[in-house]
Amino acid sequence: MNSTTTFDTPLALRHAIRERRWTGYTNHIAPHHVQGNLMIVPAAYADAFAAFCAANAQALPLLARSEPGVPFMPALGADLDLRTDVGGYMVFRDGELSSTPESITDIWRDDLVAFVLGCSFSFETLLRNHGVRLRHLDEGNVSAMYVTSLQTEACEPFKGPLVVSMRALSPADAIRATLVSSRHTMFHGAPVHIGLPQLIGIEDLSQSYGGHGLTTLREDELPVFWACGATAQLAAMHARLPFCITHYKAHMVVTDLRIEELAASA
Amino acid sequence: MNSTTTFDTPLALRHAIRERRWTGYTNHIAPHHVQGNLMIVPAAYADAFAAFCAANAQALPLLARSEPGVPFMPALGADLDLRTDVGGYMVFRDGELSSTPESITDIWRDDLVAFVLGCSFSFETLLRNHGVRLRHLDEGNVSAMYVTSLQTEACEPFKGPLVVSMRALSPADAIRATLVSSRHTMFHGAPVHIGLPQLIGIEDLSQSYGGHGLTTLREDELPVFWACGATAQLAAMHARLPFCITHYKAHMVVTDLRIEELAASA
Repeated sequence: MNSTTTFDTPLALRHAIRERRWTGYTNHIAPHHVQGNLMIVPAAYADAFAAFCAANAQALPLLARSEPGVPFMPALGADLDLRTDVGGYMVFRDGELSSTPESITDIWRDDLVAFVLGCSFSFETLLRNHGVRLRHLDEGNVSAMYVTSLQTEACEPFKGPLVVSMRALSPADAIRATLVSSRHTMFHGAPVHIGLPQLIGIEDLSQSYGGHGLTTLREDELPVFWACGATAQLAAMHARLPFCITHYKAHMVVTDLRIEELAASA
Repeated sequence: MNSTTTFDTPLALRHAIRERRWTGYTNHIAPHHVQGNLMIVPAAYADAFAAFCAANAQALPLLARSEPGVPFMPALGADLDLRTDVGGYMVFRDGELSSTPESITDIWRDDLVAFVLGCSFSFETLLRNHGVRLRHLDEGNVSAMYVTSLQTEACEPFKGPLVVSMRALSPADAIRATLVSSRHTMFHGAPVHIGLPQLIGIEDLSQSYGGHGLTTLREDELPVFWACGATAQLAAMHARLPFCITHYKAHMVVTDLRIEELAASA
């Protein structure tokens, strides 16, 4: 497996992930299909989490919600098993990271409800189609994330800061990306900030959330920030949920939905 | 006359300008009506200038063109006399500024063709309607203009650099203003640049074209740049036209067209 690896279908990719034949970031590997953030919470918290998503829809656009105990989402993907088809998981207990397993089959429970939320990886294809240069992709990287001083709208017990993703863009591309992304509310819509990260509580771009992603700026680039689904992770930690599971960084749920089709229908 | 002066109609304002009862900038005084840049050229150059406008429509959106020798534009305003109803004029001979009269009645000629081009003053009302704070208006000032290193598309003899107007905006307002202005191509559409003026040849914001307008930035503001109708002035100077006339800085043609109506129809 290397950077030239491709899969004929999202299903083939999910099977490769399930069988650990693909363990990398998903942003490069499925450029034409919608990807999503995963959040799995006990049923007792599911309605509150759904309300939190609705109240913060720019960060947390809901693509699908499962029935309690059902780890499948046929509307999003054929033979999609949320317990095995994501490249990595983070398990939180009482708000603390407890483990990062490769599969959650052995800890799945009948009371768990899964949510899949839109992800900015999906609009990157649309940006590129409009001529926006995404240097982090050119460099084989992912976009960096940051915790901001902006606050979400709370839906108890969910609350906490807005997390954003950052892309380093030329000024002309920043304008183009603003216009293109604004039309795609299922993928976070327009940027929430541009150019002056210290105003939203980001003091040092090199210190990204999770420690990964492209964090450098060239002299001819501006940092452009979009609301990010990782906001859900922070909210679950702030809520100190007894138990929840999310995807591991930049290893997303890859669906069968085509980006252009969802974009056109939204 | 002071900053609280208002006029019931654009016609009343034009009569006040004609009679020198109003001599100030027009950006504050007619916030609901479309304003335009004025360019008057000999008929021999009119088609070339129209082609130049069409080739550079973001800077030079054509609102109206007169017949040779006709200084009236009834489609833009009742009793609108372009020889007297603009607060100031600049007369160029062989590409050099020759005089800045208060009226051009005595130099009007039967071969002159007038063009009125969209102006960013018109979208400022729309920006404010969407909650964008325009500090230069709050401070009783106008937006500053700059000559850039970006080049227009030439239509001989017209060519030369793109001129831009700058507004100092908060990052959130810069995003909002980008989205709102992009929908109004008759008023220059989306910004052409944001944030890094040296990339478009602007080394010093304090040195604005014409020497007027708000040129300072606060720490929490970004400079946002739109294509500007003053591009026509520079092009006429570069063309070394034997004779042409434009409006004097920030003294625009005030029309009877309502901004919201033109915006909705475009």
